[in-house]
Amino acid sequence: MQPGKAGARKRTASKGPRRAPRATKPARSPPRTASGAKPARAKPLALGDLSRLLGYSIRRAQLWIFREFSRQLAAFEISPAQFSVLCVIDANPGVNQLAVAQLLSIERAGLGRLVDHLEGRGLVRRTASAINRRYYVLYLTGAGMALLERLRPAVGASDKALAAKIGPRAYKNLQRALSTFVEDA
Amino acid sequence: MQPGKAGARKRTASKGPRRAPRATKPARSPPRTASGAKPARAKPLALGDLSRLLGYSIRRAQLWIFREFSRQLAAFEISPAQFSVLCVIDANPGVNQLAVAQLLSIERAGLGRLVDHLEGRGLVRRTASAINRRYYVLYLTGAGMALLERLRPAVGASDKALAAKIGPRAYKNLQRALSTFVEDA
Repeated sequence: MQPGKAGARKRTASKGPRRAPRATKPARSPPRTASGAKPARAKPLALGDLSRLLGYSIRRAQLWIFREFSRQLAAFEISPAQFSVLCVIDANPGVNQLAVAQLLSIERAGLGRLVDHLEGRGLVRRTASAINRRYYVLYLTGAGMALLERLRPAVGASDKALAAKIGPRAYKNLQRALSTFVEDA
Repeated sequence: MQPGKAGARKRTASKGPRRAPRATKPARSPPRTASGAKPARAKPLALGDLSRLLGYSIRRAQLWIFREFSRQLAAFEISPAQFSVLCVIDANPGVNQLAVAQLLSIERAGLGRLVDHLEGRGLVRRTASAINRRYYVLYLTGAGMALLERLRPAVGASDKALAAKIGPRAYKNLQRALSTFVEDA
C-alpha cells in the first residue's frame, strides 16, 4: 500500500484517511439506512450492476492472473508485458518492433521503453532493418533465450494455478470461448 | 497512435521509425531465415508460448472488452473504472472510499483522483464519515444517479456485443467459469 502522495488535491495530509483497513472484512463504514440490507460490517459490499456484467468478471480474472504471474516470476523481475514481448521475439526472430506493438496492443512509446529496458538488460538486440532502415527489428540475445528458458516453468506454474483455481473443465471452456480474441489479436 | 514522445532515449527523432503500418496485414519485416516458416508477409506473426497460455487469452479478451466499452460510452466520457466506481457507490450509499478501492482493486491514490474527478463533475458527493472522521464516505448525487441510469443501456450493449462475438453458449460458460473471481473480489 503506497502512501497517498498523489490524488490529495482536495484534502490535507492530516485530514485525509491514512490507513487502509486490511483483510477480507469490509472496511468500516456507517450503518446504511438501507431497505432491509444488513449493516456493512456483516456482509461484503454489493457490486450492483457489475455483478451481472461479464466484462467485469473478465477484468477480475485478468487482475488475478497478473498478480499470480507476478508472484511466480518475482525472482526474474519480468512483468507480463515484458514476458509477452520476449515470447514474440523468440517466435519471430528479426520481427519489426512496430509489428510487436500492434500484435500485443502495446502503445508504441510504451513498447519503445520496454524494449529499451530489455536491451539494457542484455536480453534483446535491436537493429535497423536491412530492408527498410526506418524500422527496427528485434532479436533475442543468448542471454534472452536462456532467460526465457528459465521463465517457462514459472509461467507454466502460473497458468496451472489458474487451472487449479477454476477447475480443469472451466479451464477448457475458457480456452475455447476466448480463442477468438487471440486469433483477432 | 501517439507520436513517440517518450521511449526515444537511444534514438534521434529523425532516425526512429515514424509511422506505424495500419490494417490487419503484418507490418513489414525482413524475410525470416526460419526453418520451414513462410515469409512474414504471408502470415501473421507467431505468438510462441503465448498461444498456449490462458492468461494471455484472458488479457486479450479484457482489452477487447475495454475497447468496446469505451466505444459504447464515448458520448458519456466515462471510463470502465469510473463506471465501476459509480456502480459500487450506487449499490452501497455512504460507502467508505477505502472499501471501494479494495473491492475494485484500484490503487488508493488512483481512486482518490478518480473520485476527485467524479466529484468535480457533480456526480459524487464525498463527506467525512459521521462514525470515524478519518474516513471518507461516498454518495451519488442526483446527477450521478441520472447519469448511471443513462449509462445502463450503453453498458448493456457492450456486454451484448461480447455475447455476440463469442456466442451465447460460450458467454454462459464464461460467466460460470469466472464467477469465482468476482466472489473473491
